[in-house]
Amino acid sequence: MTGSGFTAGDYARRRRRALADAAAAGLAGLLVTPGPDLAYLTGYAPHLSERLTVLVLTGSAEPTLLVPRLERPGAQAAPGVPGVALHDWLDGTDPYPLVAGLLSAGGRYGISDAAWALHLLGLQRAAPGTGFASLTDALPMLRAVKDDREVELLAAAGAAADAAFAGILAVPFAGRAEREVAADLADLLRAHGHEQVGFTIVAAGPNGANPHHDTGGRVIVPGDLIVLDFGGLRDGYGSDISRTVSVGPPGPDQIEVYQVVQAAQQAGVDAVRPGVPCAEVDRAARAVITAAGYGQWFIHRTGHGIGLTGHEPPYLVDGEAAPLVPGMCFSVEPGIYLPGRFGVRIEDIVTCTPTGARRLNTASRDLHVVG
Amino acid sequence: MTGSGFTAGDYARRRRRALADAAAAGLAGLLVTPGPDLAYLTGYAPHLSERLTVLVLTGSAEPTLLVPRLERPGAQAAPGVPGVALHDWLDGTDPYPLVAGLLSAGGRYGISDAAWALHLLGLQRAAPGTGFASLTDALPMLRAVKDDREVELLAAAGAAADAAFAGILAVPFAGRAEREVAADLADLLRAHGHEQVGFTIVAAGPNGANPHHDTGGRVIVPGDLIVLDFGGLRDGYGSDISRTVSVGPPGPDQIEVYQVVQAAQQAGVDAVRPGVPCAEVDRAARAVITAAGYGQWFIHRTGHGIGLTGHEPPYLVDGEAAPLVPGMCFSVEPGIYLPGRFGVRIEDIVTCTPTGARRLNTASRDLHVVG
Repeated sequence: MTGSGFTAGDYARRRRRALADAAAAGLAGLLVTPGPDLAYLTGYAPHLSERLTVLVLTGSAEPTLLVPRLERPGAQAAPGVPGVALHDWLDGTDPYPLVAGLLSAGGRYGISDAAWALHLLGLQRAAPGTGFASLTDALPMLRAVKDDREVELLAAAGAAADAAFAGILAVPFAGRAEREVAADLADLLRAHGHEQVGFTIVAAGPNGANPHHDTGGRVIVPGDLIVLDFGGLRDGYGSDISRTVSVGPPGPDQIEVYQVVQAAQQAGVDAVRPGVPCAEVDRAARAVITAAGYGQWFIHRTGHGIGLTGHEPPYLVDGEAAPLVPGMCFSVEPGIYLPGRFGVRIEDIVTCTPTGARRLNTASRDLHVVG
Repeated sequence: MTGSGFTAGDYARRRRRALADAAAAGLAGLLVTPGPDLAYLTGYAPHLSERLTVLVLTGSAEPTLLVPRLERPGAQAAPGVPGVALHDWLDGTDPYPLVAGLLSAGGRYGISDAAWALHLLGLQRAAPGTGFASLTDALPMLRAVKDDREVELLAAAGAAADAAFAGILAVPFAGRAEREVAADLADLLRAHGHEQVGFTIVAAGPNGANPHHDTGGRVIVPGDLIVLDFGGLRDGYGSDISRTVSVGPPGPDQIEVYQVVQAAQQAGVDAVRPGVPCAEVDRAARAVITAAGYGQWFIHRTGHGIGLTGHEPPYLVDGEAAPLVPGMCFSVEPGIYLPGRFGVRIEDIVTCTPTGARRLNTASRDLHVVG
């Protein structure tokens, strides 16, 4: 799925806007390989493979999609491919000169972040005078500003994640392994319409101090704080929510840390407004944690964009000067991680509106006690 | 899973061999990003992300793994990371100079095929005097020669795929949609120990003429030939098998094409012997199809390597001069695709032994009639 309800016209419009943005950024064009950028611009979402597939967008020629011959039927069927010239190449031939022939010598082209090094090196060899820049560096906001239909799909994914959280509060925690609760979360995400479960982190007790804990066999015991961080894709668009729950009544130190994170998350959300630099959201959330004396234990950025992927620009991180724009959708997810003890993270997806943030997760952010 | 039963010593041995092979290929070292190469050399298999994670292997310093700080605990726990210096970098800082500091100016380094363009461009910027070559170009056979334990794991995955094929012969075909049969195949792969179902192509009637058909809603009818191509990962190692079945008695043209493909597949397998160029396997299989007058309808290479991934070197394709070596494991999968009519493909995974091919799929290659 690449999002329901988009037409060939929608894709053509996105390609025109991408080219205009590229020209404004001093790029001669864009080279887009399989992944979310290609899905966004053509609706074509093939499996990744070592065979070169690339959409070439330049100001001087019609959009061209080059695919391995055996992928031609699948490419032809993609909803945004009408309006794109479809070319193919055969196993055993060298596809890079075909792309080089579409590029102007001396031009600088944006290329998908996740394009394989194999392919970039092939292009650099075939087009030695040409410059390349990653799309995140050159055109970071290509997919960052969502249209109304995209926000609607992200809101539906967020509501489904909220419903999964409501469901997980009813299951037993104490005495079960983290991975059993994770399996329940996966079932709940699917039950609420996710076609893909991306991640279901269940990090109990000291494991919560690892932000990307690999959910495992630890048996949950009373007194644990548990970081739950889960999401996936629903109708092609991402969900991502974190809540921290307490198994039985929390202790005073757990409550203190929780309240700091809750206040930091609110401060981050409150900082969202059109024109504000992305870094300001990070600064606002971090300031609360630093003031409370936990600054050194907030070891990641405050948030990341979300859309066709779970992690994409804008990044809410120190140094990111790009301004927030209405339609941007991203996480606000500060945390405190106390090694050997516990962790707390609270995360909502929000969208920037003309007047400030609108949360796409509305599940309660109070500290819930589970059994 | 990255394959059961490998020790820190196994990984250290692989790293030493990789470095020796790299030196022999004129490389100053290797840069290995998340994916099968990293899993092979360290047992570390993190989720892909835009954050740089890279193993730096050079002749002059100890192996170094650079990870985002929040991934440090997961990296530390990987079975092959003892013996590797673990360094981390923090969100908001620039990790590329840290890597550049480990490289010698003017050196040429192999880099993982699937390393992101984002990261390669960052490295090229931070180490402008340094050359890069994709591992498939510079060191294509890094993971191609499997050790005994790996062949054993691939044989077990193949046997599981064979068992899934035996199971699918018993389900009803006529009157059901392709995707229903595909769901049965997925269930069977999981029932036979696959932790990941990679693909379940069910291409009925004219859909069989598309080698990478996107399995869908077409209802299967008597008279269809159906290409079944399915596999995934079992204990971290790949399976991949294709068989073509007939719904009810096949017609004479279907039988004729089937027999050509069957003979071509046998000819490809018979060509496998240490020292024979990879291209020779392709030539042997293709010669049978060409001689029968179907050459133009065999539109892909004859095979690909398999291991921690489903598609990897060696590639059995025209022009590939690399010799077969005992321990290499790969598919032999000729096909004939008649647009608008039907397709036939027969595929086994084989391993090259000192005396010739050993099939890791042993399911019957006769044309089965299903109901």
